[in-house]
Amino acid sequence: MTLSTVFTEMFGIRHPVAPAPMGGSAGGALAAAVSEGGGLGILGGGQGDREWLDRELSIVAETTDRPWSVGFLTWAVDAAVIEWTLERGPAAVMLSFGDPAPFAERVRAAGVKLIVQVTDLEEARQAVDVGADVIVAQGTEAGGHGARRGRSTLTFVPVVADLVAPLPVLAAGGIADGRGLAAALTLGAAGALVGTRFQATFEALVDPSIAKAIVEGRGDDTERSRVLDIARGSRWPSNYAARTLGHPYLDRWRGREAELAGDTSAIQAYQAEVTRGELPPLPVWAGECVDLVDGLLPAANVVRAMVAGAESALARVTRS
Amino acid sequence: MTLSTVFTEMFGIRHPVAPAPMGGSAGGALAAAVSEGGGLGILGGGQGDREWLDRELSIVAETTDRPWSVGFLTWAVDAAVIEWTLERGPAAVMLSFGDPAPFAERVRAAGVKLIVQVTDLEEARQAVDVGADVIVAQGTEAGGHGARRGRSTLTFVPVVADLVAPLPVLAAGGIADGRGLAAALTLGAAGALVGTRFQATFEALVDPSIAKAIVEGRGDDTERSRVLDIARGSRWPSNYAARTLGHPYLDRWRGREAELAGDTSAIQAYQAEVTRGELPPLPVWAGECVDLVDGLLPAANVVRAMVAGAESALARVTRS
Repeated sequence: MTLSTVFTEMFGIRHPVAPAPMGGSAGGALAAAVSEGGGLGILGGGQGDREWLDRELSIVAETTDRPWSVGFLTWAVDAAVIEWTLERGPAAVMLSFGDPAPFAERVRAAGVKLIVQVTDLEEARQAVDVGADVIVAQGTEAGGHGARRGRSTLTFVPVVADLVAPLPVLAAGGIADGRGLAAALTLGAAGALVGTRFQATFEALVDPSIAKAIVEGRGDDTERSRVLDIARGSRWPSNYAARTLGHPYLDRWRGREAELAGDTSAIQAYQAEVTRGELPPLPVWAGECVDLVDGLLPAANVVRAMVAGAESALARVTRS
Repeated sequence: MTLSTVFTEMFGIRHPVAPAPMGGSAGGALAAAVSEGGGLGILGGGQGDREWLDRELSIVAETTDRPWSVGFLTWAVDAAVIEWTLERGPAAVMLSFGDPAPFAERVRAAGVKLIVQVTDLEEARQAVDVGADVIVAQGTEAGGHGARRGRSTLTFVPVVADLVAPLPVLAAGGIADGRGLAAALTLGAAGALVGTRFQATFEALVDPSIAKAIVEGRGDDTERSRVLDIARGSRWPSNYAARTLGHPYLDRWRGREAELAGDTSAIQAYQAEVTRGELPPLPVWAGECVDLVDGLLPAANVVRAMVAGAESALARVTRS
């Protein structure tokens, strides 16, 4: 059995697995390792810091000849960074969270595939309209940012797949092992976009304390909230929230987001506590599937284990 | 391919599908039709109204010789009703939402299988401890009641399956078609508990307006909330919420549950609006998978379509 799909055929890759473009932590080493491992590596280009991108893109170029991609936050990136990225030869550009229309034509005119991540059906329709080649359906199980009021992956993926057919859909949110990958495929996805599991790899650009927290973390302790974006003074628009592991500020401010946003001294206190080392420098972004992450691995091994696990899950179900 | 699992073998049934024991609407006709269709029919015994049960159990007895079951709300039922039900010959008794310990031994002593529904890992451990034969892992996608702060089916099922192995797990929440059934099985479940899809069957005891709302409803419009339980003066404990389609009271009171609970006149106004026909008599309990319910069907056809759909989803994924 090989898990060949429209997505793997589109990019000429072996496995229907891609890492989520986690801003800052999905660097060149992770993207290249996933591509070398048979998936589609995706750099976490975030808001489009050109210095960071330049360094990480060089690592990709030195490490792999296979297809790779870059993801950006649509609400933050500008056209010049996308133009500049297109010249570096990605197989695809992925746009998440915001209106892809201002950038879509540029990506497609360069002969580069356009991947658009969506969190509701209206965004899925819009992604089709702008000519996306691949649509990522992100459920609320996902770690890190997503729609404040979103949909669960299990129910969202088949509905999006029906809506956008024959375009391929990647399932995002809640997938960390082979069983989840197999489930994504049976739901009608052509692959899975995987975040949290790839945070606990040797190649991810995360502090060892974050990798440890993810390996030890439990899905019951994750929560989607705007509290930490507000406390951090983040630029994320208010229609997005982020799933993280537990944090003292969540307990202090849960349900009082508007109050926190108006409380300058509370926000300054957060920064001061971070500076004094009483709070970690960053929240631990993690998905509900964090229970299934049980060790630090090389990223290529994660790809291999997910594919082998999916094949064995499918064989178990269909054996009779 | 037949979807034979530990669950189907335990009950000697053909298909790994059971209807959720939806209180009041999963009556004898629905339970018997599902059992006749090859699944495990489960009566929605709710809080244990003996008159309702007596009537619906008679319908089951007249309609099928195959195994069937009864589900109760653990926080509401009393031991006498369970004793009385056990004498009617169920293959299993299902207990949901609350501590199963006071009833577990009684069920097992009668030689009847015990099915326990859980919404977090602590409840899953407890279900194992009381000797459950089958554990239902319910995710927040589910329509109707569940834990106020729950887990998504996609991530919860594999974690519960690992925790309780070798006990069989049924996945509940977000499953309405064959793709969802196939996903449940690949995640490690031995079957699926399906609610919303069976509400739109000829056998369900629901008002035609409810069946119509479910066929037309969209997952984006469903929401888990305590507002309607509070407004209705329901006895449901405050650690449970219910997923419903949109309702004027959700818009009016969202986020102000404590205030509503203390506002006797608002609660009286709800009752008055129901009496005057300005509000529907009941909320429309529906899961996030309601998009996938596209017509009213006989319940046996639902079972057949889900199984055929799961087989074709699995064949599609494994064909290559």
